[in-house]
Amino acid sequence: MTRTDVAVVGAGPIGLAIAWRCAIRGLRVEVHDPAPGSGASAVAAGMLSPVAEAYFGERRLTELLVASAARWPGFAAELTEASGTEIGYRTEGTLMVGLTGDDLAEARRLWAYQQGLGLPVTPLRPSELRDREPALAPRVRGGALAPTDHQVDPRLLVPALRTAARRAGAVLVPQPVRRLSDVDAGVTVVAAGCGAAALTGLPVRPVKGQILRLRAPGGVAPGFRHVIRGYADGEHVYLVPRADGEVVLGATVEERADTSVTAGAVLRLLRAGVDLLPELTEYDLVEAVAGLRPGTPDNAPILGPLPGRPDVLAATGHHRHGIVLTPITAEKIADLVTTGVPDPLLAPFGADRFAVASSTGTGDAARPDAGDVSGRRFAVASPAGDAARPGAGDVSGPGRTTEEDLWS
Amino acid sequence: MTRTDVAVVGAGPIGLAIAWRCAIRGLRVEVHDPAPGSGASAVAAGMLSPVAEAYFGERRLTELLVASAARWPGFAAELTEASGTEIGYRTEGTLMVGLTGDDLAEARRLWAYQQGLGLPVTPLRPSELRDREPALAPRVRGGALAPTDHQVDPRLLVPALRTAARRAGAVLVPQPVRRLSDVDAGVTVVAAGCGAAALTGLPVRPVKGQILRLRAPGGVAPGFRHVIRGYADGEHVYLVPRADGEVVLGATVEERADTSVTAGAVLRLLRAGVDLLPELTEYDLVEAVAGLRPGTPDNAPILGPLPGRPDVLAATGHHRHGIVLTPITAEKIADLVTTGVPDPLLAPFGADRFAVASSTGTGDAARPDAGDVSGRRFAVASPAGDAARPGAGDVSGPGRTTEEDLWS
Repeated sequence: MTRTDVAVVGAGPIGLAIAWRCAIRGLRVEVHDPAPGSGASAVAAGMLSPVAEAYFGERRLTELLVASAARWPGFAAELTEASGTEIGYRTEGTLMVGLTGDDLAEARRLWAYQQGLGLPVTPLRPSELRDREPALAPRVRGGALAPTDHQVDPRLLVPALRTAARRAGAVLVPQPVRRLSDVDAGVTVVAAGCGAAALTGLPVRPVKGQILRLRAPGGVAPGFRHVIRGYADGEHVYLVPRADGEVVLGATVEERADTSVTAGAVLRLLRAGVDLLPELTEYDLVEAVAGLRPGTPDNAPILGPLPGRPDVLAATGHHRHGIVLTPITAEKIADLVTTGVPDPLLAPFGADRFAVASSTGTGDAARPDAGDVSGRRFAVASPAGDAARPGAGDVSGPGRTTEEDLWS
Repeated sequence: MTRTDVAVVGAGPIGLAIAWRCAIRGLRVEVHDPAPGSGASAVAAGMLSPVAEAYFGERRLTELLVASAARWPGFAAELTEASGTEIGYRTEGTLMVGLTGDDLAEARRLWAYQQGLGLPVTPLRPSELRDREPALAPRVRGGALAPTDHQVDPRLLVPALRTAARRAGAVLVPQPVRRLSDVDAGVTVVAAGCGAAALTGLPVRPVKGQILRLRAPGGVAPGFRHVIRGYADGEHVYLVPRADGEVVLGATVEERADTSVTAGAVLRLLRAGVDLLPELTEYDLVEAVAGLRPGTPDNAPILGPLPGRPDVLAATGHHRHGIVLTPITAEKIADLVTTGVPDPLLAPFGADRFAVASSTGTGDAARPDAGDVSGRRFAVASPAGDAARPGAGDVSGPGRTTEEDLWS
């Protein structure tokens, strides 16, 4: 058998999009996965939210999210054309809301940070909020619009990518890859989500998310059109309306590796969802499910060759951002496969930023999220974010941000 | 083909138990059902609660519930022996609790009524309550013990009854019965739950119930042993612990005929359940399901011949009481088949208490729950209960009850 040019391990959105982009450049591509689309994407809501998800201490990640979101309109159009199927791409924008005064204060602090980055966030008066979405609870105290934060349906995206990749000549091999030596290719791309840890030793860990799917009664569309992201009595939830009546309500973020659905999580999600949008009370609850996001110590993906293995490229660790990062990941990894030269945009996201610690105890105390993954202990060599402890929060006031304009 | 002695329409617990009891008396029995056990029993919790469910205005129904519950120990033992399978019969008793002061006041009014009937209800001090079930929330204000209210697992009961009926010689015919003329037998017993309306014209209507199944994490038994029935901020719920770790949390009572699971119902059930037993937060939510109880205008079952059709016996309309009423229904219907003479105990539950109204407007105003079922309008000729409007509540003080002692 002729050796293939590219072997992609993992047929989620990331792996399939890479396969598609490589195949349309004329490369021979195989995608290895016994169960395509059965990982995090089968559970994901599909928000394309670089603005609403621009968090303190994750500036470089935000840059990548913004760059990828900017590619989504073209990517969606090309994919719809190439596959002949709809993918549920919607551009009504995202409303960010706060239920109580405390919720609004927390939200406003983040909106100010996002505005300081030059991202498009428009605070709305309560009357403007209700003009846009009359279904919001009267209790909702305030909100802001992120008009460029869109959505896509991951359960439509994966079949569309499969079709597009297949039409471009990529071949699906429905077999599991248990070690890198199982595949023989010029370049191997590991896009195996949480499975990348066992294949590569990279510090990718499962981050559990529980999520609900509701459906408007009577087969009608939901009574709201924007993606709603809300703070409700301290609970952070989002509500994603689909044209077919589905509403995705999520999600927990748990340092657990099981996929059980728990009573407490369902209760918290439903309570917050109904508090923000009372009409959800009447909706059918059609699914409650948990998935595992591929998390990394600094919440950013790992995009590039394994240290000492230029023939093995990682494209994993996308955590909560796999769908929005699909276009740029596919484009930049395909570039890398073709040219051998990494785009400077990928520099902060190299696999080399995580070094295997030669002894225990170094670094972990300062980075409590580094953790012990797949039996090996890692310390962080250089973070992709700009804070010493990503996610720990920016204690300076939002008015003091000096970030450049990310959106322009 | 030889005409069979008894054709039972419906292979739920009622139909199967009747078939079993008839078969062990030497009758040739056929049970017709394309999907045995797929009705209300597949959803039911299996509480055997004549005491906790003794409501104002339903004295004769309570007498029947008490009489049937008294048969359960022997019935369970005989069925376990005859089928060779366990049915999850447990006798730890039921704790009735109130979360808030208002809940407790509502509960105490009912407990006083139940005590006035001579039913075994023992009020407990908070310390006694917590001694019995330390998992109860500290907020729970008070409670009472109904030691004779037990439980069984309907999902074990139905297979056991199938086996017992089969071993006794009954034959299952996996075909639907669309009209009474589809079967040819000496006696036809209609035990078709909600399906009885279309077959007989009796005023049996679907009453929707939504119910959850949780499971203690780690495969252990739940952290409580009693059935818990609680009032929690005005919400009435029950929690039924099984030995295998399952907890059944129910149930809504809705005048609807669909079987959708709604977000609002799941939220209300979980909130009340967690308020009463905080450890449920950590439980897995393994099932959310809705079923349709066969309700009647006076909430009591219909047990006896159709008017003018002595060869057709109804055994339906058991509403929320099908499991507890299974032994006495089976015994008395089998007696009736054998002897042709109805037991006096059945007198209040005859089909003849519902007469087809010759004109609209008679009776319905006084009995708003009579409703319009299967396209025909019924008025009530003589109620099985003792109140003019069953379920409307007893406005006399509990101390004034003059009911005889039902328990002795």
